[in-house]
Amino acid sequence: MYKDIFMNVRVKSPLVHCITNYVTVNDCANVILGCGGSPIMADDISEVEEITSICNSLDINIGTLNVRTIKSMIAAGKRSNQLSHPVVLDPVGTGASILRTSTTFKLLEEIKFDVIRGNISEIKTISQGSGNTKGVDADVSDIVTEDNIDEVISFSKELSKKTGAIIVITGVIDIVSDSKESYIVRNGHTMMSKITGTGCMLTALIATYCGANKDNILKATALAVGVMGLSGELAHKKVIDNNGGTSSYRMFLIDEISKMEFKSLEGGLKIESR
Amino acid sequence: MYKDIFMNVRVKSPLVHCITNYVTVNDCANVILGCGGSPIMADDISEVEEITSICNSLDINIGTLNVRTIKSMIAAGKRSNQLSHPVVLDPVGTGASILRTSTTFKLLEEIKFDVIRGNISEIKTISQGSGNTKGVDADVSDIVTEDNIDEVISFSKELSKKTGAIIVITGVIDIVSDSKESYIVRNGHTMMSKITGTGCMLTALIATYCGANKDNILKATALAVGVMGLSGELAHKKVIDNNGGTSSYRMFLIDEISKMEFKSLEGGLKIESR
Amino acid sequence: MYKDIFMNVRVKSPLVHCITNYVTVNDCANVILGCGGSPIMADDISEVEEITSICNSLDINIGTLNVRTIKSMIAAGKRSNQLSHPVVLDPVGTGASILRTSTTFKLLEEIKFDVIRGNISEIKTISQGSGNTKGVDADVSDIVTEDNIDEVISFSKELSKKTGAIIVITGVIDIVSDSKESYIVRNGHTMMSKITGTGCMLTALIATYCGANKDNILKATALAVGVMGLSGELAHKKVIDNNGGTSSYRMFLIDEISKMEFKSLEGGLKIESR
Repeated sequence: MYKDIFMNVRVKSPLVHCITNYVTVNDCANVILGCGGSPIMADDISEVEEITSICNSLDINIGTLNVRTIKSMIAAGKRSNQLSHPVVLDPVGTGASILRTSTTFKLLEEIKFDVIRGNISEIKTISQGSGNTKGVDADVSDIVTEDNIDEVISFSKELSKKTGAIIVITGVIDIVSDSKESYIVRNGHTMMSKITGTGCMLTALIATYCGANKDNILKATALAVGVMGLSGELAHKKVIDNNGGTSSYRMFLIDEISKMEFKSLEGGLKIESR
Repeated sequence: MYKDIFMNVRVKSPLVHCITNYVTVNDCANVILGCGGSPIMADDISEVEEITSICNSLDINIGTLNVRTIKSMIAAGKRSNQLSHPVVLDPVGTGASILRTSTTFKLLEEIKFDVIRGNISEIKTISQGSGNTKGVDADVSDIVTEDNIDEVISFSKELSKKTGAIIVITGVIDIVSDSKESYIVRNGHTMMSKITGTGCMLTALIATYCGANKDNILKATALAVGVMGLSGELAHKKVIDNNGGTSSYRMFLIDEISKMEFKSLEGGLKIESR
Repeated sequence: MYKDIFMNVRVKSPLVHCITNYVTVNDCANVILGCGGSPIMADDISEVEEITSICNSLDINIGTLNVRTIKSMIAAGKRSNQLSHPVVLDPVGTGASILRTSTTFKLLEEIKFDVIRGNISEIKTISQGSGNTKGVDADVSDIVTEDNIDEVISFSKELSKKTGAIIVITGVIDIVSDSKESYIVRNGHTMMSKITGTGCMLTALIATYCGANKDNILKATALAVGVMGLSGELAHKKVIDNNGGTSSYRMFLIDEISKMEFKSLEGGLKIESR
């Protein structure tokens, strides 16, 4: 099953429409290309519906939202919904400002999202209607550990039921959950938090995987999370071998996503179904 | 002749004004610096005429166009025309939305471009007034091959006559053409299509080469296309040697542009005049 | 003293709010993370006051200013002043257009800056009210040398007295000065001028160092300048060893910032107090 999902991305080369932030947009585009898709960034209200129509999925990321682009997000999301394209939300920093929190709820009200990916603080903000997000990072008191994992899974299933979206909570341990089924992904490396954009890149990867696997988005999302995490592990080995720093790590991370073959992926995945 | 063109870029260090997209802007700036020029990115309507006045050439790229920046493009282009600065157009994704197509024609109406660079689908859209661009990539049915190359050259010359601009069509084979003379450039590597921005970077390179070679822009454009292609070949060797992926490739590509010496360039160029 | 300043950044991990240009924003974010801080980019007027409130310092960079973001800069700066957060200004290209020059003076009027960092042409523009900035680079006639260094130091002290800000002039020789005390930093490498964003990255680094060292911002600024310069030297060695070009240099530069340990920093710093 995972093999089909993986190969679909390379064979179908889905077009992914991104309305995303200007901080990590280049990395997102290169990740989409690296895994086998094709990115289009377009955020003007007068073209987003048309652009999203020729695409296979839509990635909405509020990292550097502004009044102009929020309108474009809603228009693109609604059109994607009409066309049954998978729509993925990355609520960057929701809980850190009223604009981010209220925009997140506005988007959830207007658009039916297939997947929502955030750190635990961002996802809790969505569940509670307010948050204690420390900027764009997760609050330490919220972190998912082996001790509270069952609790977090219940919470994810509950939120999935409420929103209709697959919930992806990323951190040291990653959770992927719909209302009934959950995956725990234990791939990844702490160095991923030392560069900007690993969250955004993963959301772009999920949008690409879902765009090529419309009929199987829960497993496609779980696999994308695994691909990202395993690439993070392999990149760390490369950094050590090359005595590199964080910028080398960023390069090796995208390199590994682009070089990934199913055989090594299968051998390295640490995905547990619950 | 090519040697003079090449050295002029390094000696004159032309200032290049870019109104470009936020996806690949950093790569464009680094390519301009790498080849010997100096970039300025400025897109506010209240400063673009002044900024473009102190520059040597102008690069207009519609990759993430919006209503605000379209006005700035027109103002900067008109001012550059008055000052006889070379103006280069990259009509990213024209044909993929009405906004992109109509903006392209608006720009062509208001500004006299010296060079227009795009993939075959984008250039056909300009010729036909509408297109079947698949997002920002060329449509497969349009691809330039050894079989249809004479046809494409005639088409380019025709379009050059109509627009007054040098036409650059990039793909596996690159065509550079004014209304009378054409160059076929067979440098390059397929891996260039696996990273975002190689088209944008080439357009920035062309703007830099034209800025330093105002009296010889056809040959300057052809040489810029050759420099980009050869750098793409050399970067591929580096990627293989280093067991790298697409992000390494991006780095090596800009590295090779910055390290290029005329001797190795001369040895590696595959430019044919028609 | 320098050791405390250096360790404070890693231990306190200051949150740095950046309203910066879209050309080098990714590099700035990665530099902030690399040295030990945490970046937040937010520029919408309706959230900047709230975002800056949860941060430890503010970096305002006018590299791609526009009417929308200028208002956000002022709002964020005023709020930061109320909260006594260090506020750093990077007046990119001031003197190259009326918009840049007048915005710089508007910002200086509305906001109390703790640090202003620019090249000599930009800083002279601030002092004189007009400038001869060649785009975003320093004018050759302005360059700081061993011959005019005393003159530049007097000028810096004078300007610091006038603005109330620490003045940082970067070039081959870097000057850091308040109204009474100056530091000359002789670290750095000429290759730093062959990539885009080293100035912006340094300003982001200064904002991070000041955010973690509010009670000692003159020395924190001088140390940040030294860290940047030494990283530039170490990165150059790496480029030579790897036969790299400018894009490798950019990666190694951020790598070295992220890998810096106090022991090697202490051994490599060339900071002279005057």
